[in-house]
Amino acid sequence: MSDSATDAPPMVGGDGICSYYKNSYLQRRSANVVKEKIDEEIAKKLDFHNLPGASNTFRLADLGCSVGPNTFFHVQDLLEAIRQKYEMQFRTSQTPEFQVFFNDQPMNDFNTLFNNLPQERQYFAAGVPGSFYDRLFPESFLHFVHCSTSLHWLSKLPEQLLDKNSPAWNRGRIHYTNAPNEVVSAYASQFARDMENFLSVRSKELVSGGMAVIISQGIPNGMLYSELQNGVMFECMSLSLMDMVEEGIVSEAQVDSFNLPFYAASPEEMTEIVERNGFFSIERMELNDPAAWLKRRINIPEWVVHVRAAMEKSFSKHFGREVPDELFDRLTKKLGKFSDELELKYREKTLLLVVLKRQ
Amino acid sequence: MSDSATDAPPMVGGDGICSYYKNSYLQRRSANVVKEKIDEEIAKKLDFHNLPGASNTFRLADLGCSVGPNTFFHVQDLLEAIRQKYEMQFRTSQTPEFQVFFNDQPMNDFNTLFNNLPQERQYFAAGVPGSFYDRLFPESFLHFVHCSTSLHWLSKLPEQLLDKNSPAWNRGRIHYTNAPNEVVSAYASQFARDMENFLSVRSKELVSGGMAVIISQGIPNGMLYSELQNGVMFECMSLSLMDMVEEGIVSEAQVDSFNLPFYAASPEEMTEIVERNGFFSIERMELNDPAAWLKRRINIPEWVVHVRAAMEKSFSKHFGREVPDELFDRLTKKLGKFSDELELKYREKTLLLVVLKRQ
Repeated sequence: MSDSATDAPPMVGGDGICSYYKNSYLQRRSANVVKEKIDEEIAKKLDFHNLPGASNTFRLADLGCSVGPNTFFHVQDLLEAIRQKYEMQFRTSQTPEFQVFFNDQPMNDFNTLFNNLPQERQYFAAGVPGSFYDRLFPESFLHFVHCSTSLHWLSKLPEQLLDKNSPAWNRGRIHYTNAPNEVVSAYASQFARDMENFLSVRSKELVSGGMAVIISQGIPNGMLYSELQNGVMFECMSLSLMDMVEEGIVSEAQVDSFNLPFYAASPEEMTEIVERNGFFSIERMELNDPAAWLKRRINIPEWVVHVRAAMEKSFSKHFGREVPDELFDRLTKKLGKFSDELELKYREKTLLLVVLKRQ
Repeated sequence: MSDSATDAPPMVGGDGICSYYKNSYLQRRSANVVKEKIDEEIAKKLDFHNLPGASNTFRLADLGCSVGPNTFFHVQDLLEAIRQKYEMQFRTSQTPEFQVFFNDQPMNDFNTLFNNLPQERQYFAAGVPGSFYDRLFPESFLHFVHCSTSLHWLSKLPEQLLDKNSPAWNRGRIHYTNAPNEVVSAYASQFARDMENFLSVRSKELVSGGMAVIISQGIPNGMLYSELQNGVMFECMSLSLMDMVEEGIVSEAQVDSFNLPFYAASPEEMTEIVERNGFFSIERMELNDPAAWLKRRINIPEWVVHVRAAMEKSFSKHFGREVPDELFDRLTKKLGKFSDELELKYREKTLLLVVLKRQ
């Protein structure tokens, strides 16, 4: 049980003005879009009569929990739905004890997480450091797994992206947006391997009848990433960095050797991986509009602050501490020029909800 | 399940030169004094035939684990003894999975703990933030509890110590060393209440047949705290602070309102509390020489660095950040003057080992 480091960045820790703690409410709103659907699945599919041990202690894990506060809201919502289902199934208000495991990578800021745990929580809390692509729990330990806006982070970058002799060399770009097919395939294969690992370890940790809810960045079947708003953002990041190369702030080699380990899968891809794994039934798989609540035009500076809280560490680790200020400043300006294009870009359905049940 | 703050200080976090992480090897050596005795108890008393669920997953908690590395050594030693007992009892090398819960107060530096987890550990690790005087785990969840050099920290200070109208007002002292009986009694009552809480919550969390090992500062029956080396240290702390009062560095009111929440129980007291609680059988209760390994005279500066790593935060919280430097400097010098007295002080048996079994 070693701590395999992953290429996915930890969110910005602490609770200062640039922190993920303070700048993750857009993610929360997006996740809320699917709340009712998850509640519905729990009400319909979670069956306490066939869930070993759950009537004494119900164990839930939030994988990729970051520093809060979103994880606390999600857990609260989930436990409420689970409690309701229990009460309905047994016609009693005497519910089991709940134990919640907050997981993220060891370099996640668990101190901030622990110091912000809700005072009046009705569950026993624990933190579990480690990559969720590895085993984190004993066999048949968990009854429910929740993994929100985390699985689009790859465990590592495909090596070919850095290989000058490979057709998948990702020169002058930091993502597969607008990249040759070989680059897209390299990302897709890594995602498939990661997802297979995820399902394989979870199949051991979940009891039979246990559920897994995954909320992740997705993409409609057959669509190119450049057709999405996020694609425009990644493209603008690449362009901003290339401008900085021209001005001598960073080197071309630095840009060529940098790639973001971020991949959005289509329902079709996801279905294929789950079916190949074979341990889970697909209870629900659908794309949702992550900004269904957003009635106005996209607020670019606010969006960039959120992106930065989630991604800054990737950039500072590779380019040095000074670069993110400059880069995100340029990104905001550059995105401003694309604001009409952003509004026109397909923005309906990029939030993938997957509800699985351990067979 | 709220996080009741306790008066016990967190150890100095991080892994810098003043950290508990770097300055806790004396505690480790002391704990090692009892290692063989604990191994013996495990070999004799831990019975996998009567330990519900333990043959699938064995669950151990280290309560008051601090930031490491001592907790990792202890856990490693315990698991080895437990594994041996399992192999002996079932004549198989196919042992259960192990899950280890590292507990300390929420303000403990869990980031340092998590980043230093042994890479090649053979157990699933989790961190549990909270006071061990409260419930931390679901019912009948744990098989083994270890609590080393933590239970001598009271959950809170007796209020009478600050009451000018009480005979237990602890004026001009920061501990019950050399204090009137009323002060000693106030400390003793608080310890008894804390220990009762500890046993009461653990009795729910441990399965029947589960074991609890407590290693703590103790004192021989009927002995005064001033007769111990630690007593001299607390006395010298008080004297150093009173010198600082004279020099106007701190105020007398500041010293009067400060007390260390540290209490060392005798085997007699401990036995009485456990018997009154009634949920545990006493398998072993004995005092040990914490410095049995120490062949030379006590090294005062080294000792003070260790004391500081464990206690500094209590002082800085009350007196301000500047005071500990001055105080511990004076303490080292003052203790130097008492070095002969320190060598003569009773130093045989102040490490209390208690092995309990949940009935």
